[in-house]
Amino acid sequence: MSSNLYDVAYQMEKVIRSSAEYTQLRKLYDEVNADASARVMFENFRDIQMKLQQKQMMGQEITPEEVEQAQKTVALVQQHQSISRLMEAEQRMSMVIADLNRIIMKPLEDLYGVPGQQ
Amino acid sequence: MSSNLYDVAYQMEKVIRSSAEYTQLRKLYDEVNADASARVMFENFRDIQMKLQQKQMMGQEITPEEVEQAQKTVALVQQHQSISRLMEAEQRMSMVIADLNRIIMKPLEDLYGVPGQQ
Ligand SMILES: [Ca+2]
Ligand SMILES: [Ca+2]
Repeated sequence: MSSNLYDVAYQMEKVIRSSAEYTQLRKLYDEVNADASARVMFENFRDIQMKLQQKQMMGQEITPEEVEQAQKTVALVQQHQSISRLMEAEQRMSMVIADLNRIIMKPLEDLYGVPGQQ
Repeated sequence: MSSNLYDVAYQMEKVIRSSAEYTQLRKLYDEVNADASARVMFENFRDIQMKLQQKQMMGQEITPEEVEQAQKTVALVQQHQSISRLMEAEQRMSMVIADLNRIIMKPLEDLYGVPGQQ
């Protein structure tokens, strides 16, 4: 890989790190993790989300009980101010990353068409 | 998203587009697509690969016949000079993109740990 590619990648890393979206995300992440009960609640939420995503990806059936449990956990974390703010910050960061990827992947898209539709 | 993030993304797009890896990939891609028999052979190979990947992702069983068919198609395209060179160029481009992503995703990795292992 040419040094130009590395240079611009490291520059992007720096810009991401100093962006409002990332610094806000970091602040809220630290806030939630500094509060033991918030951290446990958030980790539990994450575990349930990931388990369901994995089942979905594997084409496994998700039971009504699992759906109900997931909905209850979402409702719980949404009522927690720090966690819900963290989740909003994560959403914004994801959108930034998606935007960056769309721009960066344009040369390959030009070659192969829309990603996943080759 | 701040203009800094857009600026650096567009700069990276430009650097990727003018990289040796991308220009070589584009050249070989055009070469294969300009040759009707090579194009059909390559598209057939791609279709088989994608079908197997999708089955694997869905946790579906891949039959010995499908494995054999895939191996035969790989052997066939590897003997075709333009296609095998295109596949090598694709591999190199993938490695560049993976390297860039590793660098760009470092800020988020610092927060969440190794991606996929949250
Ligand atoms: Ca295509
Ligand atoms: Ca972690």
